[in-house]
Amino acid sequence: MNYEDRLAACQKQLSVKDAEALMLFPSVDMQYLSGFTDEPMERHLFLILGENREPAFVAPELYKSHIKDDSWVDDVRTYSDGGDPLALVAEVADDLGIGEGRLLVDDRMWAQFTIDLHETFPEADFGLASEVIGELRVQKSDAEIGAIRRAGAAADAAIADVRNLGSDAVGMTEAELGAYIEDRLTTHGGEENSFAPIVGSGPNGAKPHHRHGNREIDFGDPVVLDFGTRIGGYPSDQTRTVVFGGDPPAEFEVVHEVVREAQQVAVEAVQPGVPVEAVDAAAREVIVDAGYGDAFIHRTGHGLGLEVHEDPYIVGGNDEQLQEGMVFSVEPGVYLEGKFGVRIEDIVVVTTDGCERLNNSSRDWQV
Amino acid sequence: MNYEDRLAACQKQLSVKDAEALMLFPSVDMQYLSGFTDEPMERHLFLILGENREPAFVAPELYKSHIKDDSWVDDVRTYSDGGDPLALVAEVADDLGIGEGRLLVDDRMWAQFTIDLHETFPEADFGLASEVIGELRVQKSDAEIGAIRRAGAAADAAIADVRNLGSDAVGMTEAELGAYIEDRLTTHGGEENSFAPIVGSGPNGAKPHHRHGNREIDFGDPVVLDFGTRIGGYPSDQTRTVVFGGDPPAEFEVVHEVVREAQQVAVEAVQPGVPVEAVDAAAREVIVDAGYGDAFIHRTGHGLGLEVHEDPYIVGGNDEQLQEGMVFSVEPGVYLEGKFGVRIEDIVVVTTDGCERLNNSSRDWQV
Repeated sequence: MNYEDRLAACQKQLSVKDAEALMLFPSVDMQYLSGFTDEPMERHLFLILGENREPAFVAPELYKSHIKDDSWVDDVRTYSDGGDPLALVAEVADDLGIGEGRLLVDDRMWAQFTIDLHETFPEADFGLASEVIGELRVQKSDAEIGAIRRAGAAADAAIADVRNLGSDAVGMTEAELGAYIEDRLTTHGGEENSFAPIVGSGPNGAKPHHRHGNREIDFGDPVVLDFGTRIGGYPSDQTRTVVFGGDPPAEFEVVHEVVREAQQVAVEAVQPGVPVEAVDAAAREVIVDAGYGDAFIHRTGHGLGLEVHEDPYIVGGNDEQLQEGMVFSVEPGVYLEGKFGVRIEDIVVVTTDGCERLNNSSRDWQV
Repeated sequence: MNYEDRLAACQKQLSVKDAEALMLFPSVDMQYLSGFTDEPMERHLFLILGENREPAFVAPELYKSHIKDDSWVDDVRTYSDGGDPLALVAEVADDLGIGEGRLLVDDRMWAQFTIDLHETFPEADFGLASEVIGELRVQKSDAEIGAIRRAGAAADAAIADVRNLGSDAVGMTEAELGAYIEDRLTTHGGEENSFAPIVGSGPNGAKPHHRHGNREIDFGDPVVLDFGTRIGGYPSDQTRTVVFGGDPPAEFEVVHEVVREAQQVAVEAVQPGVPVEAVDAAAREVIVDAGYGDAFIHRTGHGLGLEVHEDPYIVGGNDEQLQEGMVFSVEPGVYLEGKFGVRIEDIVVVTTDGCERLNNSSRDWQV
């Protein structure tokens, strides 16, 4: 979808959802609709979109040239430092004829700004922009899937290089291996980390969100490697658990096989029309049956697009139906505190009758 | 101030401001009070502090060990993915006897969470946490000032190295010079960029928030260099405008002298009891008198502490009084579109009878 189509789809959804306008804040939603975003900051910067008119930015004067460079939106109204951004917001609202119905604010707008909007529009009801944009963003276009596929291929190539280290990785610190992974991702075309690589060796692998530290990788250590890179703005996200040399702990081989089976079964459960939670249930059943249910302490996955974590969340209780074009991770794990962790993760895209994996590197623990 | 003092001061302020509780979200405020923070994310993670009880975290199970590692807060209540975080929030609120008075939410809490809190506490009034924490954070302790001073010294040392490049910098791209600056900051003890270095050469210098690009630095180009690094968690932020060789454009020397004079006069205006806006006015008067008022398109500065931009903002209309221990930037600039920009920035700390500059490198444009 190009920007014109996105805009039209949003305006149609505003009508369907009986809302007057979207009020976006620097975020992925702002980027998705306008082409421009920046880090959220203390200055007021909104994109306002009503049902029947072109959208307008309200922005600090010193962001004007950036917005003009990056965005197709023509109407950029600016204020100077010390000026009154809320007066401008009210002016735009007047032009659009909004302010008394439902206003959908960016899901990530800071409270300091939502409070301002509550004061500027005391008669309005407030909701979240995801009501309108969520359904658009969740269904990826071919161009988006293409970018995610390329990012996935870069992650596949990087993990192959890491495996080739073999026992040379023994003695490296987690941080050193993390730096090596970043280097390989760049070599294979990655433009920017999806997130700082996770290298969890031995007991550190049992902390699912451990980044990396100064622990040296030893013979026999299971090492959880979770990383990705962006290509064309879209990220990859892949996890493998490997042993670089020596014999892993006794229970490790069993656990690795359980997680691998759980991941496989969950991937096979993916097809249009299936409730999202069924994918989580499929993975969980394998792990519970093997006696490790308590050690699978997170959801099975998360959607991935402009953001590394976005809808749909693959979690119990989510009864949304899978649709063709959704992209998400399938990443069951088992974490044995003080011992080791195992996680295996691929990104999949829902197809007409199942799904396609966008990561295809070896899932073996032997390097 | 240690955590115990910060907690006590906060609880006292809650009472002064007639508020029942703080509800923090992953942010600098959460870090300031608890020692723990993380990137904001889609999962509910709150720190709740009432007036008379120890604070409690409500957090995803898989963040528990991180919080325990980083924070002194003992009471960490967790939920699993697919569980009900808001039921836990309600339980903590019950324990603290809160929910019908004023609740102060993190200024940066995402709308998707404030909407949840509005639904969980329909009787409550909502305000912003800065009402309570703002006054604490704005007045820096000796330890905080010490860290900012060290970070400033690293920036001073880095710009000295950059000057030593002399005409070797001609022919480098902005991005290459940016990478060199990052390298020098690290060499001089910096732990992490305060922000991606800004290298604005020639006409790019006229865009105040230009980062850096592939433009090659030429003889005679004015180059705006704005960068900083963190030491002990606290950042520096310094700007110099230099010419690496050759003759600058005709108007440049005059403009540089105007900006330098404006910065000097503004720094001299700083002392306790003076309204913040007087510092902005001092810089602006010099620039307006020289005929460049329209080209000084931003405020004169921003507070700096755990965040690079925080209170106090040095801007017209801010009639707060300066207090000893406040730390902020003084950074007037003149931007001539299509030609060049000039900005000179130092961090200052307010002392008993004036201020101390925490950057002391040369402000000359000649390298």
